[in-house]
Amino acid sequence: MNPITSPLLTDLYQLTMFEAYLREGMDREAVFEFAVRNLPPGREFLLAAGLESALSFLEDLRFSEAEIDVLARTGRFSKGLLAELGRLRFTGDLYALPEGTPFFAGEPLLRVVAPLPLAQLVETRVMNLVHCETILASKAARCRLAAGEKTLLVDFGLRRAHGAEAGLFAARASYIAGFAGTATVLAGALYGIPLFGTMAHSYIEAFPDELSAFVAYARANRENVTFLIDTYDTLQGARQAIRAARILAPEGIRVKALRLDSGDFLSLSREVRALLNQEGLPEVQVFVSGNMDEYAIRDLLAAGAPIGGFGGGTKLDTSADAPYLECAYKLVEYAGRPRLKASAGKATLPGRKQVFRRIDEGRLAGDTVALEGEAGVPGEPLLMKVMEKGRRLFPALELTAIARHAQAQLESLPEGLRRLDGRSPYEVQISPGLRRLQEETLRSLGIAC
Amino acid sequence: MNPITSPLLTDLYQLTMFEAYLREGMDREAVFEFAVRNLPPGREFLLAAGLESALSFLEDLRFSEAEIDVLARTGRFSKGLLAELGRLRFTGDLYALPEGTPFFAGEPLLRVVAPLPLAQLVETRVMNLVHCETILASKAARCRLAAGEKTLLVDFGLRRAHGAEAGLFAARASYIAGFAGTATVLAGALYGIPLFGTMAHSYIEAFPDELSAFVAYARANRENVTFLIDTYDTLQGARQAIRAARILAPEGIRVKALRLDSGDFLSLSREVRALLNQEGLPEVQVFVSGNMDEYAIRDLLAAGAPIGGFGGGTKLDTSADAPYLECAYKLVEYAGRPRLKASAGKATLPGRKQVFRRIDEGRLAGDTVALEGEAGVPGEPLLMKVMEKGRRLFPALELTAIARHAQAQLESLPEGLRRLDGRSPYEVQISPGLRRLQEETLRSLGIAC
Repeated sequence: MNPITSPLLTDLYQLTMFEAYLREGMDREAVFEFAVRNLPPGREFLLAAGLESALSFLEDLRFSEAEIDVLARTGRFSKGLLAELGRLRFTGDLYALPEGTPFFAGEPLLRVVAPLPLAQLVETRVMNLVHCETILASKAARCRLAAGEKTLLVDFGLRRAHGAEAGLFAARASYIAGFAGTATVLAGALYGIPLFGTMAHSYIEAFPDELSAFVAYARANRENVTFLIDTYDTLQGARQAIRAARILAPEGIRVKALRLDSGDFLSLSREVRALLNQEGLPEVQVFVSGNMDEYAIRDLLAAGAPIGGFGGGTKLDTSADAPYLECAYKLVEYAGRPRLKASAGKATLPGRKQVFRRIDEGRLAGDTVALEGEAGVPGEPLLMKVMEKGRRLFPALELTAIARHAQAQLESLPEGLRRLDGRSPYEVQISPGLRRLQEETLRSLGIAC
Repeated sequence: MNPITSPLLTDLYQLTMFEAYLREGMDREAVFEFAVRNLPPGREFLLAAGLESALSFLEDLRFSEAEIDVLARTGRFSKGLLAELGRLRFTGDLYALPEGTPFFAGEPLLRVVAPLPLAQLVETRVMNLVHCETILASKAARCRLAAGEKTLLVDFGLRRAHGAEAGLFAARASYIAGFAGTATVLAGALYGIPLFGTMAHSYIEAFPDELSAFVAYARANRENVTFLIDTYDTLQGARQAIRAARILAPEGIRVKALRLDSGDFLSLSREVRALLNQEGLPEVQVFVSGNMDEYAIRDLLAAGAPIGGFGGGTKLDTSADAPYLECAYKLVEYAGRPRLKASAGKATLPGRKQVFRRIDEGRLAGDTVALEGEAGVPGEPLLMKVMEKGRRLFPALELTAIARHAQAQLESLPEGLRRLDGRSPYEVQISPGLRRLQEETLRSLGIAC
């Protein structure tokens, strides 16, 4: 059982509900939508990601004999269910926002249309993938906006990501959001993302002094040499790095950057920059890492810190200030009838929905969530059909193409959202048709509006 | 390349530093320690977890031909390095706190002793594993303490965990910390953790009414029947569940619990409890899910809410209020000489360390971080040698044994820590020997203390 692709990566209730659906013959067409209820504090928009993972999961969904055996040995499940699971494939349709598209609270980013037990079964892993990749892409997009266009951003966070998959997703999601690359070697191998790296404090400490550590590193790795200068004292480290650069220059090795990882980055970056300029090394960049997030990046650059690049680590790879979204995978239609839940604070809107987005002078100007096919709704539809009867309608996009789409989309955000100040909510309306359907559905359930 | 076990799940700099170590012939014995610098707000202690994963990673560490090929094709690495990696195995020693042991800021929970390039190389994945499992176990332990001994706790959070591995780790870590089980089917299969499940709102919505949904579910799944009652209106849902229980009783099916997932849990749990008692169903428990964490659990139980069990989801599986630890894998000795870094706010203590813990009347009474073998330090040493020359010294522990250890350890926490009120810091001292070594090392580096 592969812990990343196994269909047993699901909640028990998906299987016990399947058992009940089977017993009742409830296998008519169901429509589920995945949406975020409310944006978390500190998020004015989210950036959709995870579709490619969801498509792969749905395409490859099957229970191996070993997995059926495991289920059989629990003694919980009927032979009928086990036989059904043994031949199960995803045969439904999927509609989705393209990866790299900004979206807002209440807007479905996925719609699954499939026989009820199947559409239900895939809930857990589809959410697990799309939720995680979306929070990571959204955090990275904020860093990208904060950094402006010219500043290099790199993902350094694997060690504090929540496990292997989260680390890989962080590399991919931040690349989509406009990072230049990642330190995660496997993300380079799997996704073709450019790799970046510097050196660790332990590396410096293992040498008798910083100078010899720097020179040895550059001789062994002649390209993209970045020296970490804060192991003992940042300014002394900078002086040693400059000495190393002088020693290395005749050997044809050019130092690309000096990295700060602790202390007051504003004053230190200025002092190091001044030293570099004074010593005739204006082309050597100052690179900063250590608890970087969109706020730290924005504030440093706004204060004029001469920093050429940032490494995003922990706060990026865990989306530390918003590590989860209030989101749900909701049944909106079954057997041709709209469905909803009316739970306190978690009520849902019934019916197959579409998100219509208005663009004004190249900028997002407001969205409307409406019924699919509802007439008279202004804007362009965002949800695209990407899978039909279990087959992808398009080949997987190149990651660079997704990143280009994301960049164009981020540029089209209204200025207020690009400022990340939390003071410019984006307007999302509910269409008249959708309101009417909600009222009718509540009435049919005997619930007062 | 398996995305969970591949040695490419590392930072690029581990390989570029390896290149430099190789070039310089720096392969003498290095000692690294993994410790948490400061406890995050909202954590008075942490619960060690992830050792089993780290041991498996170290035992299985090898680069396949395909992985060497991938590295070769980057054009970054020397033939010497690739050959070295091709034959690499972990041949070092590992010392660790047993999983399920509480620990505090500044206390090493792992010590790796191995040739420098090897000890350095394993940093990224060892941290990725131990950091993630430790934050999850620590969060779960707080929920366990808040719930007291009799309340059932179950992990429901896979869908919002950060990827597959984090979801599996959450199930395992919460079981170690005293949860009864998980909803994650694969965690049952891989770790033998008991499985729990109820039903989704979508399941209820697909039926014409709640009563038929409840009855159908119970007939298809006769054991451990829990009805979700808040889809439309919690009290009406409770009445339908009671009707279902009456219909099912003659069929030999007993309802175990009613689950609330929204609304005011204190008043609703009382009303539902009263209804159940009044209708002669005192044995049916009230089970609550929905944004549960240690504070919600503590407050509900302190207010006397008649709740028999809680499902922990999002906040548990993401350790939402403390999704990361300030931690580092630090070089403390190389080639027989102590090492440290002196970076602002991130200075480290040199030398091989041991944690000594004093116990007073069965309760933790204070720790001392000292040099290994330092004389005159009161308390029992916590770090155990668990791997020698790349081989485990003990077979993998049963998960139930780890959970029992954790329970005993949590019971031995001082009352102030068990109250989770953040007002009772635990004393961790630095031994005189360790202080002296730090001063000497700084002096030898020419840094003022």
